Amino acid sequence: MARLRVQNFAITVDGCSAGPDQSLQNPGGIGGERILGWVHETRSFHRSFGRDGGQTGVDDDFMARGIDGIGATIMGRNMFGPIRGRWEDSDEWSGWWGDEPPFHHPVFVLTHHPRDPIALGGGTVFHFVTGGIEDALEQAVEAADGADVRVGGGPATVRQYLRAGLVDELHLAIVPVLLGRGERVFDDDVLTTDFECVEFVSSPSVAHARFVRVGGAGSGG
Amino acid sequence: MARLRVQNFAITVDGCSAGPDQSLQNPGGIGGERILGWVHETRSFHRSFGRDGGQTGVDDDFMARGIDGIGATIMGRNMFGPIRGRWEDSDEWSGWWGDEPPFHHPVFVLTHHPRDPIALGGGTVFHFVTGGIEDALEQAVEAADGADVRVGGGPATVRQYLRAGLVDELHLAIVPVLLGRGERVFDDDVLTTDFECVEFVSSPSVAHARFVRVGGAGSGG
Repeated sequence: MARLRVQNFAITVDGCSAGPDQSLQNPGGIGGERILGWVHETRSFHRSFGRDGGQTGVDDDFMARGIDGIGATIMGRNMFGPIRGRWEDSDEWSGWWGDEPPFHHPVFVLTHHPRDPIALGGGTVFHFVTGGIEDALEQAVEAADGADVRVGGGPATVRQYLRAGLVDELHLAIVPVLLGRGERVFDDDVLTTDFECVEFVSSPSVAHARFVRVGGAGSGG
Repeated sequence: MARLRVQNFAITVDGCSAGPDQSLQNPGGIGGERILGWVHETRSFHRSFGRDGGQTGVDDDFMARGIDGIGATIMGRNMFGPIRGRWEDSDEWSGWWGDEPPFHHPVFVLTHHPRDPIALGGGTVFHFVTGGIEDALEQAVEAADGADVRVGGGPATVRQYLRAGLVDELHLAIVPVLLGRGERVFDDDVLTTDFECVEFVSSPSVAHARFVRVGGAGSGG
């Protein structure tokens, strides 16, 4: 059965997974590069864009495993772009990632505003889902065709899936940064299911903690 | 000049430094042992109670360094005990730690209710401070006589000192646990100063991140 996985989801020691005030200039919010910089240095990140270079090691291993076995991705609208409101005013926007995005599979973007799918190079097709997180999950599971589904982000989207008890595996990449202000996933209402840590490994710049669901109210994935 | 240090302050991946519903049976709140269990296994912890045993290694090294150079400790009332309200009703309570507590120096307990000091074995004297966090810091700095002052906890007390910009060094011990509900230190209003990570080392069960203040509004310590 397809599992719903959150992979390589970066979080600072003070709980931020994005900085405040996202914009075209700051896709991850102000200070976002301090949260995601380690991703950009891995070989797997470079390869997903068809580029050479990047570093191997613990972080790259986790990046590779985070892609492995994934057949579809779900993301929130803010992860897709900095633009809010109706798409009519911004229909040239096709994501942050250029003509050949790093997904190479169907991507389901949560939005309140309908829009036709966008097919880009390398197998990435962006679908826009207005029916909410369960509708998106259903469509993504079908598109993944037996493979797992990944929740890419951002923080608000991960929070919604956790709160609904739908996440089967949660891999957090803890970075030794105190950001101060930003978007946080966790509060007392987020975890409706119990998670057990099954792996805890650190590189010099990231502590990777991988959790799997062991019980609770959810039944999804 | 004496520095104000937070040392070996444990925090789960989802930001909890104590579980909910502290009581006599659960000094760290429900699930608190999942946050603090690693402390109790170190040799330094055993030694601070005059006992043999315990493990050496990364966690023990940090525990030893967290005590080193400290001349006084500040703690909140909830770290001192589970009892609330006036001391008259509970004047037999002298802390969780028995006749010879592990501090071996003056300890300043923040409280709204005056109480005479309690001198116990091994050099620990509990002083009760009703004048607030700056008054407690002033008294602790004087008592430490040139050594550093430690903020022991709990989460609400650490938060108060961070918010006031008074913390010079912040060592967080991140445990790979998702607690769900508990007491969290960090939100958008907590860090009034900037901290830089100067050390990031992990054991199999804890990721240690040590931060020092690099600037901001505070001037204390």
